[in-house]
Amino acid sequence: MPGLIHHVERHRPIHDLLAGELDAVDRIFRRHVASDLPAVNDLCRHIAKYQGKMLRPTLTLLCGLGGRPEGAVLPQRLSEAHRVLAAVGEMIHMATLVHDDVLDESDLRRNAATVNHLRGNETAVLLGDYLISNAFHLCSTLGRPEINRRIGETTNELCAGELLQVHHRDDWSIDEATYFAIIERKTASLISLCCRLGAEQSEAESSVCDALGAYGRLLGVAFQIQDDLLDLVGEERVVGKSLGRDLEKGKLTLPMIHFFGSAGASSRSEMLECLAGVGGTGRPARIASLLVAGGAVRTARETAFSLVRQARAELSRIPDSPARRLLDDLACAVITREY
Amino acid sequence: MPGLIHHVERHRPIHDLLAGELDAVDRIFRRHVASDLPAVNDLCRHIAKYQGKMLRPTLTLLCGLGGRPEGAVLPQRLSEAHRVLAAVGEMIHMATLVHDDVLDESDLRRNAATVNHLRGNETAVLLGDYLISNAFHLCSTLGRPEINRRIGETTNELCAGELLQVHHRDDWSIDEATYFAIIERKTASLISLCCRLGAEQSEAESSVCDALGAYGRLLGVAFQIQDDLLDLVGEERVVGKSLGRDLEKGKLTLPMIHFFGSAGASSRSEMLECLAGVGGTGRPARIASLLVAGGAVRTARETAFSLVRQARAELSRIPDSPARRLLDDLACAVITREY
Repeated sequence: MPGLIHHVERHRPIHDLLAGELDAVDRIFRRHVASDLPAVNDLCRHIAKYQGKMLRPTLTLLCGLGGRPEGAVLPQRLSEAHRVLAAVGEMIHMATLVHDDVLDESDLRRNAATVNHLRGNETAVLLGDYLISNAFHLCSTLGRPEINRRIGETTNELCAGELLQVHHRDDWSIDEATYFAIIERKTASLISLCCRLGAEQSEAESSVCDALGAYGRLLGVAFQIQDDLLDLVGEERVVGKSLGRDLEKGKLTLPMIHFFGSAGASSRSEMLECLAGVGGTGRPARIASLLVAGGAVRTARETAFSLVRQARAELSRIPDSPARRLLDDLACAVITREY
Repeated sequence: MPGLIHHVERHRPIHDLLAGELDAVDRIFRRHVASDLPAVNDLCRHIAKYQGKMLRPTLTLLCGLGGRPEGAVLPQRLSEAHRVLAAVGEMIHMATLVHDDVLDESDLRRNAATVNHLRGNETAVLLGDYLISNAFHLCSTLGRPEINRRIGETTNELCAGELLQVHHRDDWSIDEATYFAIIERKTASLISLCCRLGAEQSEAESSVCDALGAYGRLLGVAFQIQDDLLDLVGEERVVGKSLGRDLEKGKLTLPMIHFFGSAGASSRSEMLECLAGVGGTGRPARIASLLVAGGAVRTARETAFSLVRQARAELSRIPDSPARRLLDDLACAVITREY
C-alpha cells in the first residue's frame, strides 16, 4: 500500500487500483476543505504534507473491496460513497494529529514543521476544529444519518480516550487495563469503524462486517503499541516526527508498564531517576536501553504481534480475494514499520 | 430570557414556559455528554458553571414558538426535536467557549475558573473536541441528514471566521469589511441557524423562516459588537470573564477600527503608544478613555443599535405572538446588557 506495503508483484493489480482510489480520496479531501478564504487555504495546503500512511482510507477501501469479493478477479466496484467515507476517516485522523501536536508541543510531523510550531497553538487548535467540522459536514453529504451517528459515537469515544490519557498523566502506577482502555478508545475505535463502514458500504454480509470490524480493532491496538514503541526506541529521522514526547508528557506506555511490572529494585530506581530527569542529555537513550535490557520492549512487541495474529485470524472468516491478501500483509506491516 | 430578559409581568406565561423548556434542554445536554469515565464527567460538571445567557437555545425555542403561532394564546407545541436542536446549538457554543479560553489564555469564564486555567490547555483542547463531537452526534440522533449538513456548513463557517481573525492578529490596519466578515462567520452564522432551525422545526412558512434567519444574523452581529465593547469598556466583575483580552491578543475590534479611522494625529500616536504597552499598569483604562473621548465607543454602539433596529424590522414580517414580543425584547437586551 502506498506508505506501508511494499509494491510487490503479487499485489500489482489491486495495489495499482488502490493507489488510484487513494488519489481520488485525496482529491475529495482537498476539495472539501477548500475555502473562499486564502488564509484558510494556506493552512490546508500545509497539512497536505502530513499525509503519510493513509492507513484509515486504505482500510475503508480494502474492506470495501474485500467485503463482497466477486471471485478471484479484481473487483472494480468501489463507489463514490466508499471514497467519501475514506476521506472522512482521514480528515478526522488529520484533525487529531493537528491537535495532538498542540498537546505534545511537537515541532515535527512527517518531516514537516507542525502547524503549532509554524503558526502558533491558536491556529493549530482552530485548524483542528475546522477539520473536525469538515469531516462531519462531508459525512452528512452522504444523506445517511446513521453513518453520522456512528461516526459521532466513535469520535466521542476517541475524545474520551484522549481525556482519559491526559487524566493519567504522570501516573507511574497506571496498569495495563487502563493503557488498553485508552488506546482502544483513542486509536482502535476509529480504525475499526473505517474497516466496518467500508464493508457495509459494499453490502457485505453481517458476519463479514463483524470480522472486518474486529480485524480493525485488533490492528488499531497493535498499531498504537508500535507507535508507542517507536516513540521510545525509534529513530526521529526515519519516523519523521518528534520522538520521546510520551515520557516528556508523562504518558506511560506498554513497555514502561511492563518494565515497572517486572524490573528488579535497582533497575527500577535507576529508571525512576532517569524519568525524573527526562529531557536532560542522554536520558532518553538510557531509558531505551533499560527497557530493551529488561525485556520490556520485547514483551510489548510480542503483545503487538499476538494482536496482529488475532487480526489475521479474523480475516480468515471472510472470502479470499486480492483485497484480503493485501489486508493480511497490511496487518504485518503495521508492526514491522519503522515510521 | 433567563439571563438576558427581565422577568416582567407582560412576559409571564411565555417566560415561564420557556424557563421550563430551557431546563429540559439542559437535561438533554447533560445526559448526552455523560460518559462511563468519571474523569470525563468531572469536566462536564465543571463546564455546567459556564452556562449563562443560553442565548442560542432560547432563540431556537422562541423561533419554534413564534414561527407558527396559533393566535394570541400561548403556543404549547414545542417538540423534543426543538429541544435537541437547542441543545446542539448550546453544545457547539460551549465547545467554542472552551477553545476560545485556550486561545485567549483566559482564567475566568462566568466567574468560574476556565478549564485551561484549572486543568491545563491539553484538557481544554480535548474537552472542546469532546463537546464538538457530542454536538454532531446528538444532532445525528434526529435522523435528518440535511440538518447535519447545515450544522456542518455553519461550523465550517464559524471555524473559518476564527481562523481569519487569528490571521489578522496584530494587523492594525484591518478595515470594517474584514471585521464584519470575521464576526458574521464566527458568531452570527450559528445564531442565525439556531433561529432558522427552530422555525423550520415548527414547519413555519419559508418567508417566516427567512425573516427569523435574517433576524438571527443581524442580532448575532450586534451581539458580537456588544461583546467586543464589553471587552474594552466593561467591568470584569459584572461581565464575569477575563477582559481586555482582545487587545492583548492583537484583535482589533470595531471601536478601535473607528478610532483609527477618525482620530487626529496626536490621539493616534498616543493610542499606538498605549497599544505597544498593553498589559502594563493603567494602559487599558487609558485606551478605554481615548476610545470614549474620540467617539469610537459611541459610534460602535450606534452600529449595534442600528443592527438591532433592522433585526426588529425582520420580526415585523412574522405574525404577532407572545414569542415574537419576547424576541423583540431580546434584541434590545443583547445590546443593553452589561455582561
